[in-house]
Amino acid sequence: MLPTPGFCRTCRPTMPSASRPTPTRGMASQGLKRSRVLVSTRRSASPVELKATALERADGIATIWLNRPHRHNAWTGRMHTEYRWCLQEADRDPAVGAIVVTGRGSSFCVGGDAQALQGHAERGSYDAGTPDELARPGYGRAAEFDAAFAYHYGLSKPVIAALNGRAAGVGLALACFTDLRFAAAGARYSTAHGKLNLPAEFGLSWLLPRMVGLSRANELLLTSRTFTAEEGAALGVFNDVFPAEEVLTRTYEYVSDLLANVSPGSLQQTRWQIYGDLHRSAAESVVTSETLVDEMMGEADYREGVAAFMEKRPPRWRRPAKA
Amino acid sequence: MLPTPGFCRTCRPTMPSASRPTPTRGMASQGLKRSRVLVSTRRSASPVELKATALERADGIATIWLNRPHRHNAWTGRMHTEYRWCLQEADRDPAVGAIVVTGRGSSFCVGGDAQALQGHAERGSYDAGTPDELARPGYGRAAEFDAAFAYHYGLSKPVIAALNGRAAGVGLALACFTDLRFAAAGARYSTAHGKLNLPAEFGLSWLLPRMVGLSRANELLLTSRTFTAEEGAALGVFNDVFPAEEVLTRTYEYVSDLLANVSPGSLQQTRWQIYGDLHRSAAESVVTSETLVDEMMGEADYREGVAAFMEKRPPRWRRPAKA
Amino acid sequence: MLPTPGFCRTCRPTMPSASRPTPTRGMASQGLKRSRVLVSTRRSASPVELKATALERADGIATIWLNRPHRHNAWTGRMHTEYRWCLQEADRDPAVGAIVVTGRGSSFCVGGDAQALQGHAERGSYDAGTPDELARPGYGRAAEFDAAFAYHYGLSKPVIAALNGRAAGVGLALACFTDLRFAAAGARYSTAHGKLNLPAEFGLSWLLPRMVGLSRANELLLTSRTFTAEEGAALGVFNDVFPAEEVLTRTYEYVSDLLANVSPGSLQQTRWQIYGDLHRSAAESVVTSETLVDEMMGEADYREGVAAFMEKRPPRWRRPAKA
Repeated sequence: MLPTPGFCRTCRPTMPSASRPTPTRGMASQGLKRSRVLVSTRRSASPVELKATALERADGIATIWLNRPHRHNAWTGRMHTEYRWCLQEADRDPAVGAIVVTGRGSSFCVGGDAQALQGHAERGSYDAGTPDELARPGYGRAAEFDAAFAYHYGLSKPVIAALNGRAAGVGLALACFTDLRFAAAGARYSTAHGKLNLPAEFGLSWLLPRMVGLSRANELLLTSRTFTAEEGAALGVFNDVFPAEEVLTRTYEYVSDLLANVSPGSLQQTRWQIYGDLHRSAAESVVTSETLVDEMMGEADYREGVAAFMEKRPPRWRRPAKA
Repeated sequence: MLPTPGFCRTCRPTMPSASRPTPTRGMASQGLKRSRVLVSTRRSASPVELKATALERADGIATIWLNRPHRHNAWTGRMHTEYRWCLQEADRDPAVGAIVVTGRGSSFCVGGDAQALQGHAERGSYDAGTPDELARPGYGRAAEFDAAFAYHYGLSKPVIAALNGRAAGVGLALACFTDLRFAAAGARYSTAHGKLNLPAEFGLSWLLPRMVGLSRANELLLTSRTFTAEEGAALGVFNDVFPAEEVLTRTYEYVSDLLANVSPGSLQQTRWQIYGDLHRSAAESVVTSETLVDEMMGEADYREGVAAFMEKRPPRWRRPAKA
Repeated sequence: MLPTPGFCRTCRPTMPSASRPTPTRGMASQGLKRSRVLVSTRRSASPVELKATALERADGIATIWLNRPHRHNAWTGRMHTEYRWCLQEADRDPAVGAIVVTGRGSSFCVGGDAQALQGHAERGSYDAGTPDELARPGYGRAAEFDAAFAYHYGLSKPVIAALNGRAAGVGLALACFTDLRFAAAGARYSTAHGKLNLPAEFGLSWLLPRMVGLSRANELLLTSRTFTAEEGAALGVFNDVFPAEEVLTRTYEYVSDLLANVSPGSLQQTRWQIYGDLHRSAAESVVTSETLVDEMMGEADYREGVAAFMEKRPPRWRRPAKA
């Protein structure tokens, strides 16, 4: 199911993991006193031992790490299984208001693992390697979202990608299914599939025309060429570009502001409106918004928002950030 | 049904209305000899006394004023009732070729009225305050357009927003449902809903992704941050930016050129094609255009357009600008 | 069925054809040893004598010429009949990997032929002038593509427009239904229909909002104003701008790179994914891509792509570039 080694040809299993300090360590050295604990199982009916990913929670933000830095976080079936579990866990946790996805080491995710792919080429098919029952994060919200990666749209909380480095193929698709994405200055990105006789992967052919318009999306999708973070931001693929070593901290600052200013209910409903509205008519969108306005004006956080507004003070949102 | 005080926290009922001359006076002082008369009832089965709006007609252009400058044109149920009536009136008037929407005073529309909203917060619901039968401008053209503000799409004439100043929430939604919109240099705009625990209002979550692409729309919708006229134009929210005191006159110049060059029938059908095509397939769009070409080539204005083209003279459109 | 003289008012039948050397001659003078032969009938059940177009094949690229330079390639029913035949022929030819569309002389296509249009105005209807059975290039792939010009979406190979000069009306629509388009520096473009009391032509009202966003598309469609190649590229109408005399050679270079790097199967499927995905949901897009990944990993060109990638050499694609 998942392919495309972007540019990880030079990395081999024996290659040491990236020597640059991980963002977590970097944050500590910058004096941010976040108390982060690696959590691999918590409140889950089906606990998973996290090897290819890691899940941290602090200050209302869950961070999902793609955690195969020795392979530039090349995607595997196991990674996807774990990623789904992490998303579901973060989405269910009432202490979590937003989810950040990032990668350990120097890359975000260079696509499907090349070694695994070579095996697939010999076998002529792809083995997801996921015998266990899969978590189903975001499923059940709308039929239009019920597929791999499109499940992001069904989550009840915003997901922001902190692209610490390059991304390609499935790695780019994952990032494009999040709500907002910040890229690393100078890093390179690509759809990448065309050079392996593959189709556009996991909805990139659905996403990019809606993100950057048809002309430019066609070019990125048909050529599989690489583009820089800066070009991607100019096109509208990325929301902003930060120096690689600051991408995660800047993302945390952005998300902290978001959670302070915007109510959990508004974040939840606005996401669902946006992605639902890509599948329905103008009139249906308006009628949906009218129903939601009526509902949400009856909630405590509407009264809190109006009060904070009139009293010129920051709001104190009350509703747990939960579906 | 309609919320979001954008930034009108500082304005109170006792606040004097903006002292800057209204665009109408400004135009007069610039020597434009438009003979404008405030018209509150004319050729309507259900006359309405206009308090929160005003309707003017001159030189083939109807101007609808949002007319609560002491409240920065904050939106109320009464304003919406009147606005619908004005639109319907202008759309039916054969002397009107295009409709301009603008605001009196220094703002276009800062969102739902904050005082009214406070009352709603106490009651837990919104009272549209419109006991009378509502006008239904643009309704009946297509089911996809038959909802609040989406009704603009069903009108038979172009609607252009002259955003004389800031706009937020429902004010921005109204502007985005017009065909073209010009903003005031330096003025600030916002979706604004998130800080009040509200959903994206009245189709803004449908509109913005189609106007500026998904990445940037997500950012404007999820954060409710303000953006300047200049940033909005760079993103594709606005068609152009003019100095605040020139927005209306520049809009009139633009619309006058439009009416001189493009036939009423073409303006009408092109609008319906654009908004219909957002709801149908490529093939359906082409087949629709082929049928329309056949029909419109049989009209007098096609012969006039070809004749003017061959004779190198301006066209004299004959068809009344009417549905 | 097809209208809009863009700016060819000054050209008359007696006007000499453009004196600038055709791109083919230009290429020869630049030492490119392409052996090009005009081919008017080849492997076709229904041979067509090409008068208004020409078809060349060389180096895996088919070039379709709009070939009425004395009329700035103004569109006629005969030209469309021939164009469809050329497209079908190129799409069926296993030696052809991509299709380039360009115009002879100084213009790409200025819209419907003005003289023909005058006749239509007198008759009040349009005569396609195509008694013979029409070729149906790209038809049968998806109902959403089965209409004039939308048929491009059903083709099995990429189509790139080399806009050697100005384009308007139907000429612009044709260009916008190709996958990628390169414009000539300084040349002018226009939707053009509004000045003739016509509707947006052949899907331009479907295409432009998806290419450049709704605000800017509205402006181009409602005003029928001209815009330069440079503005068009900034908006996202064109993928790039080259000096007029280099547009075709630069396009050939681009397409040659494309065919060398990306497998024929990937080009074919990626096109169909993009245009299909404009008509379906996010989940349907993902599920389609998953099925395609499984299929295409079983193809020889997947093994070749992985091998070339691991061996750091260019791929040698094996599959004939055929539907």
